[in-house]
Order: sequence, then C-alpha cells, then structure tokens
Amino acid sequence: MADTIYDFRSDNIGGAAPELIEALVAANVGTAAPYGDDDWTRRMVERASTVFERPVRVFPLACGTGSNSIALAATANPFGAIYCHESAHINVHECGAPELFTGAKLVTLPGADYKLAAAMLEETLALAGRGNPNRVQPFALNITQPTDFGTLYTPSEIAALAEIAHHHGLKVHMDGARFANAVAATGRAPAELTWRAGVDLLSLGATKNGAINAEALIVFDEALAMQIPFLMKRGGQVLSKARFVSAQLERYLADDRWLERARSANAHAADLARRLAAVPGIEIVAPVQTNMIFVRLPQPAVDALSRGPFRFYTLGRHLRFVCRADQEPEGIDALARCASDALRGTQEEPRP
Amino acid sequence: MADTIYDFRSDNIGGAAPELIEALVAANVGTAAPYGDDDWTRRMVERASTVFERPVRVFPLACGTGSNSIALAATANPFGAIYCHESAHINVHECGAPELFTGAKLVTLPGADYKLAAAMLEETLALAGRGNPNRVQPFALNITQPTDFGTLYTPSEIAALAEIAHHHGLKVHMDGARFANAVAATGRAPAELTWRAGVDLLSLGATKNGAINAEALIVFDEALAMQIPFLMKRGGQVLSKARFVSAQLERYLADDRWLERARSANAHAADLARRLAAVPGIEIVAPVQTNMIFVRLPQPAVDALSRGPFRFYTLGRHLRFVCRADQEPEGIDALARCASDALRGTQEEPRP
Amino acid sequence: MADTIYDFRSDNIGGAAPELIEALVAANVGTAAPYGDDDWTRRMVERASTVFERPVRVFPLACGTGSNSIALAATANPFGAIYCHESAHINVHECGAPELFTGAKLVTLPGADYKLAAAMLEETLALAGRGNPNRVQPFALNITQPTDFGTLYTPSEIAALAEIAHHHGLKVHMDGARFANAVAATGRAPAELTWRAGVDLLSLGATKNGAINAEALIVFDEALAMQIPFLMKRGGQVLSKARFVSAQLERYLADDRWLERARSANAHAADLARRLAAVPGIEIVAPVQTNMIFVRLPQPAVDALSRGPFRFYTLGRHLRFVCRADQEPEGIDALARCASDALRGTQEEPRP
Amino acid sequence: MADTIYDFRSDNIGGAAPELIEALVAANVGTAAPYGDDDWTRRMVERASTVFERPVRVFPLACGTGSNSIALAATANPFGAIYCHESAHINVHECGAPELFTGAKLVTLPGADYKLAAAMLEETLALAGRGNPNRVQPFALNITQPTDFGTLYTPSEIAALAEIAHHHGLKVHMDGARFANAVAATGRAPAELTWRAGVDLLSLGATKNGAINAEALIVFDEALAMQIPFLMKRGGQVLSKARFVSAQLERYLADDRWLERARSANAHAADLARRLAAVPGIEIVAPVQTNMIFVRLPQPAVDALSRGPFRFYTLGRHLRFVCRADQEPEGIDALARCASDALRGTQEEPRP
Repeated sequence: MADTIYDFRSDNIGGAAPELIEALVAANVGTAAPYGDDDWTRRMVERASTVFERPVRVFPLACGTGSNSIALAATANPFGAIYCHESAHINVHECGAPELFTGAKLVTLPGADYKLAAAMLEETLALAGRGNPNRVQPFALNITQPTDFGTLYTPSEIAALAEIAHHHGLKVHMDGARFANAVAATGRAPAELTWRAGVDLLSLGATKNGAINAEALIVFDEALAMQIPFLMKRGGQVLSKARFVSAQLERYLADDRWLERARSANAHAADLARRLAAVPGIEIVAPVQTNMIFVRLPQPAVDALSRGPFRFYTLGRHLRFVCRADQEPEGIDALARCASDALRGTQEEPRP
Repeated sequence: MADTIYDFRSDNIGGAAPELIEALVAANVGTAAPYGDDDWTRRMVERASTVFERPVRVFPLACGTGSNSIALAATANPFGAIYCHESAHINVHECGAPELFTGAKLVTLPGADYKLAAAMLEETLALAGRGNPNRVQPFALNITQPTDFGTLYTPSEIAALAEIAHHHGLKVHMDGARFANAVAATGRAPAELTWRAGVDLLSLGATKNGAINAEALIVFDEALAMQIPFLMKRGGQVLSKARFVSAQLERYLADDRWLERARSANAHAADLARRLAAVPGIEIVAPVQTNMIFVRLPQPAVDALSRGPFRFYTLGRHLRFVCRADQEPEGIDALARCASDALRGTQEEPRP
Repeated sequence: MADTIYDFRSDNIGGAAPELIEALVAANVGTAAPYGDDDWTRRMVERASTVFERPVRVFPLACGTGSNSIALAATANPFGAIYCHESAHINVHECGAPELFTGAKLVTLPGADYKLAAAMLEETLALAGRGNPNRVQPFALNITQPTDFGTLYTPSEIAALAEIAHHHGLKVHMDGARFANAVAATGRAPAELTWRAGVDLLSLGATKNGAINAEALIVFDEALAMQIPFLMKRGGQVLSKARFVSAQLERYLADDRWLERARSANAHAADLARRLAAVPGIEIVAPVQTNMIFVRLPQPAVDALSRGPFRFYTLGRHLRFVCRADQEPEGIDALARCASDALRGTQEEPRP
Repeated sequence: MADTIYDFRSDNIGGAAPELIEALVAANVGTAAPYGDDDWTRRMVERASTVFERPVRVFPLACGTGSNSIALAATANPFGAIYCHESAHINVHECGAPELFTGAKLVTLPGADYKLAAAMLEETLALAGRGNPNRVQPFALNITQPTDFGTLYTPSEIAALAEIAHHHGLKVHMDGARFANAVAATGRAPAELTWRAGVDLLSLGATKNGAINAEALIVFDEALAMQIPFLMKRGGQVLSKARFVSAQLERYLADDRWLERARSANAHAADLARRLAAVPGIEIVAPVQTNMIFVRLPQPAVDALSRGPFRFYTLGRHLRFVCRADQEPEGIDALARCASDALRGTQEEPRP
C-alpha cells in the first residue's frame, strides 16, 4: 500500500495495549477519593509489592520526567549534586526539570557504551569535596536502565555503582522509562535489577510499553517516601483521578504481557540491527541490547531513508530507530533494504 | 439500602462521562507523534477556537495545579509578584507549586465573597513600588472563576479587574478549574467570561466535570504561548501520549453536555443550599452560586452528619458540600434532613 | 547655614562609628585564611558568646537581606511555609530573597502595632493543614524586633509566640536589623530578647547602627548551623576577606557604645515624636518605641516638608522619619516647626 | 625566624592595599543614600567608563560568587543553559550559586589548558537543540579570564568564542576574579580583553588584588543592566552602605597600582614555576601565565612541603601555589628548595 508509513520514531507513539485500556475503562465505576487514596491505587501497590518481592511504596504519575524529578527531589538537599552519565535522559532530554524540582546540580560523567563506570564514579566522588562549602554536596546517583542509547547494566554493575554511592552517602535512583525492555533483555527479576542491587527508588515507565500516560514511582527505602506526597503536589504531579492511572499500572504488572511486548520490541530491534550491521558503511553506535538502534550513516543513505516511507528521529549526529512490540516486520525489511541499496549505489558509483 | 453512601467530598471523585471515555478509547488507533504534535490535539485546538470565538493556543495537561503554574510562569519574571485573593486555590491548595514554577511571590488580597475587589486591587498596585528594587514587581493577576468558595465574578467585575491589571502591566490569568459551572451559572459565553473581559490565559478544567485527568491551558495572548512548551517540559507537564487527553478535551467542548452536567451540579447545590438555609442555626458561609456549599453548623449537627451515610470535607472551620451532576437527590434530602433533625433536637432541648 | 540638609531617610545613610572603622583598619595586618576561618572571626564568636551568655555560632555577612534569607533557609524544607507579619521586612522589602533562598512561601498575618499576636498565630497554625499534601507545611516563624514600624515585642510576647511556634514544630527566627535599638529601648539583656524567649536564630544587624556592611547571623540551635556554610556559599553570602567584617562585629559588641548609639537614636525619635504629636492634624501611625516615626500628615504639611531642607522617605501612605545617634537636634526642631507652621497656616486659613 | 610561614594558599589571604583602605576611610564622611545611590558610586562608574574607554554600567558588590551569579541571571531564561569550561569557577567552586540565581543549567565543555575551544563550542551549540522543548535553551557563555588554573585567553580567542556565542543568541559573561592578572600578563587594554572582543558583562574582582570585599559587575550591554538592581536585591547582593565598596573600586582603577600589584604577583609565580620546573619529577599541570601554579609532585615532595613552613591548598590531585604581590622571595626560594631536596633525596635513595 502506497501510503504505509513505517514509524521508528519512538515507543511512545503507539497506542494502548488492549488489556490496559480495558483496565482503565473498568475503573470508571462509582466514586473514589482523589489523589491516590483509592482502591485501585491500593491494589496497584500490592501488585507491585508482589512483582518486586517486597513491600514497596508506589506513587502513580502521568509523566516520566515528573517521576524522575520527584524521585531525585526526595533525596535532595538544596546545595547538592546528582551524579549521572552525560547521556542520561535527566541531563539531556528533560529541559532542566530535575534541577527545578531538586534545586540541585547534575554532575555528569563520561563512560563507555553510555554507561557509568564504577572506577570513574569512585574517583569522582573521592574528589568531590565532601564537607567543603565551595562545592555542591553529592546526594544522589542516577542510573538509566536501559540507557538512552539502549544499552544495559548487569545486576553486578548496578550493585558495584550502588555500593560506591551508598558508601559516599548517596541514594540510588534508577530511571526505568524502558524498564520492561531491561527485564525482558536480561531475563533477570525486577528485584534483581533494583533493590537487591542497591537501588533506592525506581521510576518505572509503562507509557512507552503500552500504557496511557502511566508511570510508577517505586520507593524501596521507606524513609524516602515521606516527603513525596508534598513534593508531588508542589510539582503539579498529583493526579486528581489517580485511579485511572493506577488501574493501568496494576493491570500492567498483573501478568507477563508487559514483558512479552518488551521482548517483541527488543527482538525487532535486534533483527533490524543485525541487518543494518551487515551493510558496509553503516556504523552501529551502541551495542543493541534492547529496542533502540543508533547508527551513523553516510549521507546518501540518510537521504534515501528520508525520502522513503520511514519516520525516525535524528539525535545529534545519529539516526535513532526505536522498535515497538507491534513494529511491522516488512517495515524493518524495507528500512534495511533502503539503507543497503543507497549505500551499494554509492559504493558502486566509483566503479567504472 | 443500608450501605449507600452519599458522597459530597468533591467533584473530582466521580468517574468519566460516557462520551469522554468513548473519545479516549477511540483515540487508541495507530501511531501518533508524542507531546501534543498529533491530530487529536490539532482538532482540539480548532474546537476550542470555535467555542471561544477566536483563534486560541491550547496546551493539554493532566493536572490543574500544573496548568495554573505553567500559565503563571508564562507571564513571570524572577523577581515578580502574582496578585490573588487570599482564598485562591493557587495560594491555599497547591503546596507552593505556583511559586516553584514561577520563582515569584504570591501577594494576597482580602475581599468579600472570596472575590477580589477592583478598588483594593487598584490601591494595592498603586502602592506596590513599581521600579523599587526592594519590592517584588507585579506581573500577573490571578482570578479564580468560580472561586474556591463557589462564588462568581460577573463579566463586568472581571473586566474591571483586568483593566486595572493591564494598566499596571500585569497579565490576567483565570483559574477555571470549574469553568463549566461558571458558564452554566451565568449563562454567559466562554468568550465573555474570558478574553472579551481581558483574560490573557485560562486554565480550563475538565476533570472535575467528567473528564479523566484532562485540563486545557488556553492562551489568548499569542506572545505568552512561546515559552510554554519549554516551561511545560521543565515542569514535567508534557504528556507523552497527549492524544488521549486532547481527544477528551475535543469531545468535551464539542456539544453542550459539559454545560448540562454543570447546570445539573449547580442545581443540586442550589437545592441543598435552599434546604439547609431554612434550618435555623445553619450559617451558609458564601453565596451558593455554583456547585459548592460552605456552611457552619452547630456541633450536634456536625456530629450527626459525621455519623450518617455522608462523606464531605471539613476545610478550616467550614463544612464543604460539593455536588456533581449525578448527585443523588435522595442524598441531598437525607443530608438536609439529618442536619435539620440534629438541630431541631438541640434547639428544643432548652425548652422546659 | 543655608545648605544644611537634615536627613531622616534611614539609619543606613550614616557612616561608620570611629571605633568600628578603627577595628577594620587594625585588621589589615598579615595574611588570614579566607571565608571566616580566621582569628578575627573566632574572637568575634567568643565575644558574641559572652554578650549572649552562652556559646553561639556566628556567621559574618555583608547584607541583612542575606542574613535573614540564610537563617530561614537553614530551617526550611522545600514545600514549606514561613509565618510572618504582613509588614515584615522579609515580606515587603527584600524583593523575594527569602523565597529564593528557601524555596518556601511566606504566609503573612495581620496584627496590631505591626506585631504578630499569639492568638492569631495559634489559630492560623491550627488550621494550616499539617500533613495535608495540598498545603505548604509550616517550618519557621519570623519575628522582626523592632518591627519595620519601630514597635517592640516584650520578652514575654516573644516567648508566647515562640512557644506556639515550637509546639507546632517551627523554628523561630528574629530579624534584628535594629536589634540594638530594641535592647536599648527595653533595657533587657540580649539573651532575654532572644534564646531565653525561644528564638533559634538571630539576624543581628550592625550596619544601621554604625558598622560598614557588617551583619551577624547568630545561631542558638547548634543543629541549625550545620548547613549554613553551604547555604551561604550557594547564596553568594560568603565573604572572601571575612576578617574585615568580623573585626567590626567583635568591636561592636565589645562595650556599650552600640547601645549608647541606639539609645541616642531612640531618644531623638522620641523627641521628634513628642513634638509632632502635639501638632493638631498629625497622626502618629505606630507607637514610637525605637528610632522610627511613621506619620500621616495633611497635604500642606507634606508639601512644606518636601520644600524644606529635609530628607525622608514616603512608604505607602506614610512619611517615615528615622533618627540616628548623631541626628542634629536643630534638624528635629526645624522639622517639627515646619510641620507645625504648615498646619497652623492651614487650619487658620478657613478663619475669616 | 623560626615561626615565619610562607603562605601560598590564595590571593585572598592578603590584606588591603594602602591606597584602598585609605579610600575606604576617606568615604566615612557625612550621610549618603544607601544601595549605591551615592556620589562615590557615581564617581566609580565614571572611572570605570574611562578605564574601559566607553560608558559602562557598574554595580558594586562584596562577593565574587554573587557578581558572577547576578551577571548570569541578567541574561537568563528559566529553562536555559549556560556554557562554560568544566573547570570554571562557576561550575566547581560556587556550590550551585549560579544555578540558584539563574534557575538555569550549566553545560560544561572540556578544553586544553583549561580553556574553551571555539570549535568545540560551535559544535556543541549546533547540536544543542535550539527550539526543542526537551532541551534546555542556550543563553549565556561564561569565560573565566584568567582561568581557575591561571591560563589566559588571547583577545582573538575571546573574540572567536564571543562571535560563536552571539551567532547562537548567547550573551558573553567574563569571570574576571583575577582580571588584573590578565591585563598585567597580556599587556592588553581592559577594553581589548572585554567588550571589543565581544564580552557583554564582566565580573571584575578587586578583592584578590588588594581590596576589601570589593567586586564590580560591569555591564557593556545596556539592556542587560535593567533587571540587575532587582536581581541583586533578590539575591541579597545589595550593599546598604555601598559607598565603602565603591570608594575602593574607584581608587582601584584610578592609577596603575592595581596592575603593578598584579604584575608583581605574576612575576613571583613565574619565578617559582621556573624553579619548580627545573626539578626532575615535578609536573607543572598548566602553563603558568598569571599568578597561579598547579603541580603534581611525587609523594615525598608533598610530605616534605607539608612538614615545612608553607601553606598551600590541594585541589583534587594537584597542589596549588598562588602568589601575591607581596609574596616573600625567600619563601619562593625556600619552597622550591624544599621540593627539590625532597626529590633529590628520593631519587638518590635507589642508588646503592
């Protein structure tokens, strides 16, 4: 069909998974107290406690940026520093929201594969000037899992970072906007990737994996939960009719469909990456471990893809392709072929 | 039925109006660009332009506190002052969100019936110290319509306030969390209550009147819209899948059902108020002009209501009863009777 | 002398007391660690501990607004409220500095003679919504002593306010920009007016009483001192060469000259007030208890004073006259006479 | 003398230059309007206009951190980004003050010799996402001259950076805490190093070069001056008795003594650097172009220096030696010899 568009822009362009929109519709019954003091939210907290294998506190939100910012604010002091990778979503793509909500400074670190390295974190914190009033004081570590480039930390990598952080008095926040993709790709239990490895707060995203503006801020350290209701209100993050978000989140975690979708998205990305990697001239920028592919292409391939029935984003110098669970296989095929053709053409041209 | 509870806590305890949840479900088709760059949002903006009889900019949000705070931030300077009534929602019930988002100070004014008075505003602004670096500099006026006590400004009252505000260089923001109730009660066109009277930005709430976490920030002064996308992102107010909010808002404004619901809620409140006012000993605190009733009751009546099958909030020294469109008439009847019975008993006791 | 100007604008228009500028000059010897880690600062802390009859922490600053703001920030949480009189300096004359440094909201109370009343504070705090996330949470009480209108709290009034504040979990900050005038006027020991009455932090001003940009933030509650070095640096309040401020402050508190100056200033004001009060048509706005007089005058008197060799400020609807220790008696005489003459003229005019 | 200490900690440990303390004392005459509305300040502005060869606006302050923060705030929007070198004082040594005062984010760049490089700035700004609401929006460039490691930009390097910055809509702020050392070292006119090269605002420090807590915020772009009085008050940066700072600043710029002192300090540092560089095993970290030396020493030399009659700071992995105009030549000699002896010992030890 001439008009088909293959859309690789993001995983938040999709709609809602059937069971999630059903859950939302089913919550439309009777009256319920506002602001999360409702039965749907209580059931959601129970569900999360089961999935994470321990009692947790959970706050429903509509927005991942808000979730990250509130989580960090719960750990903050007003002259503090949050450590994160220079490519972290909180650093690059949230327009200063974490700074607004925390009043703190982000201190960024480089690191291979867009991941924080334990040695550099240790060295940086050792020289951070704890107790020196001229220096912002470290209070939080942000780990993005998977990273904004789709790469993954192993549980032991997380544990090593968290141990250093805790040793220096920092709390550990995980930005899990695509946490499902991480669980699906690693095959590790949610608990293993979070609190068992030392994570204190998790921003668990559901929106990019089939929910409608539904995010869960999960708190493993009970003491950190105390200020969150106030911080959320002050941040305009409290939902009047929270039940419609909590109902989705409860359903989201109720069976394996969230992981099935994530596995499917990851598999599509692996497929596309394998095919692109086989084309001479295409550079895969980061290991493809979840559902995102970042590539550098020669200009003719960029031009060809731009003319084609494809949608994708350019981030800095890279093209980004994100796969969803329902990504069309023929789209993957078409995209890989288009890039390949463009480059074959280019490379053949010089031949006489 | 023994278990029936009559719930007067708030208008945000209700669920979704049928046509709004239908609109939300119907938006679950295909892919759409995130963050409001989608067809549902575009149609919603068109619809709002029709309803307000002029081109408007509209930003969909999930939260009224966020909507108010962003609207004010769009007009702010960092050493500024926002003028509002001392009972304003932004002053009392948003936990400092407007201050966080704007960096400004709220300057509060008293006023009869929980409304700002033009004379006091004029006098206050004349003495505000424009140009004096020791003083915060006025930049915005907030009008809550209806007020948090359910009272209403007439279009000419709004126009008088807005004229003074504009004369002193302030922009005018209307907090319309219950704007539908104001339109329904006054019978005036949305345009008359807003931009024709000098309002520059309107936070139009739909959540309290049948929508699911859906709020519209409507901007009449195009220049004020420029920074809003950045302010929203920085404030964690941008919705990834905005279409599900915009679809509701578009449907909300598509016919008269939003006003029918509001009229019904207002009528229930008028009915309840009339009955309570007839009971000696009950003091109606503010004129009942929309769907909220604030009363002061002798303690025996408070006790009786608290034991009864009623839910309501106590705000400061007042009891608040809020009516929804689907408020049960028998609940209104029961509540009025319960209060009346309790007080008749009380008043008869002294008799020998 | 034709050119003599009698200047009643403020007590900060004067220069430095001889012994204070001597102390400053004497500190110009050798090298000293920056940022307050010097012997002059240490001696100043000892001196303050003697004067206040207990060990205290003291931080030298150049600016009273900074001192107030840092004191409040030391007690703050980011969703908090500071309670103060509506006429408080922190509310009216600091252009939002306390809000910037604390991230908190000022909640203002009315009160006779520009003073907070215990009953109203108790009632306000009881209804403040402790624990309700919609409401900012009280954390500090600000008492200005003397007030910005020159009135005084008695030790027992301070104690009553502080007891209520502490009962509700608030810390008590005293803005003592003119603390010397309060000590001089009441004849009470500094300790009685502060920590013995429940004050936790005192912003002790010296600049308005003969020092050169020298202010002392005195902390009675040791726990509140911990964050202050960081808050001061973040607020640009740390002085590189703090010794030149500390040397003044040490000398300031070393004998009774600070109180002699304040007594003299107070006496001049009392003299002027007595003379103005005797003139029919002049309204003294607030009890004259220290060195400031606020009056309302008929326009002819305002005009006459404005044409005369006088300088003074108009604040809102009032004229303000502030007396310094070295206020010229002939200026006081001239001013009183000028006002009197103008009004006698006015009142005689109607006579045929 | 056994007790002599050679102090290389900083240039702010010194006292006041004779002519500056004289100027301060001489200002102690008569009354003067507060907050900078005085004749000393007016004369200081005239003087600065002469020195910078054009009309300038100047604001006197007591603190360099405040000066930097206010300068940046004058250019800021609340969702903005300030670009600076990763070693910039505003990034490392001001405990978050620039972020507090601006509400903005610092984006840091690496660069050889602790200097920003034009190519990297251009590339970074080109990819900064102008207009993309997910990204903070660039508004200011900070150049530290000399850098915190004592290195210098040439006028043409400054011009190249400023041209890029202006092309992308940024204002250019120069942190000149040691501006005198830069002028002295380069022999270029103040104008050449600032506005002629495109600098819009200069934080000119005098405190490190002989003044008492005296800093000048010099504004070349008149439009940027408008908000500064308000921003200063909100930031607690307005001095009640500004004349005592302005008098120093006026005198500071009145003849060449400020540059003589700076030349002397630079010469001392060059001398010390030459001697240290001659010692095998000592690594000079940055080109010594002004009055600061950063070295890496083998541990025995660090130990020997720590035991000796020397004071210096350790910053991260480096030792820092700062020279003042009145640095004792015998101290320089002693320090170089101590380090040399320690290392000769070390290196000889292995010999049998």
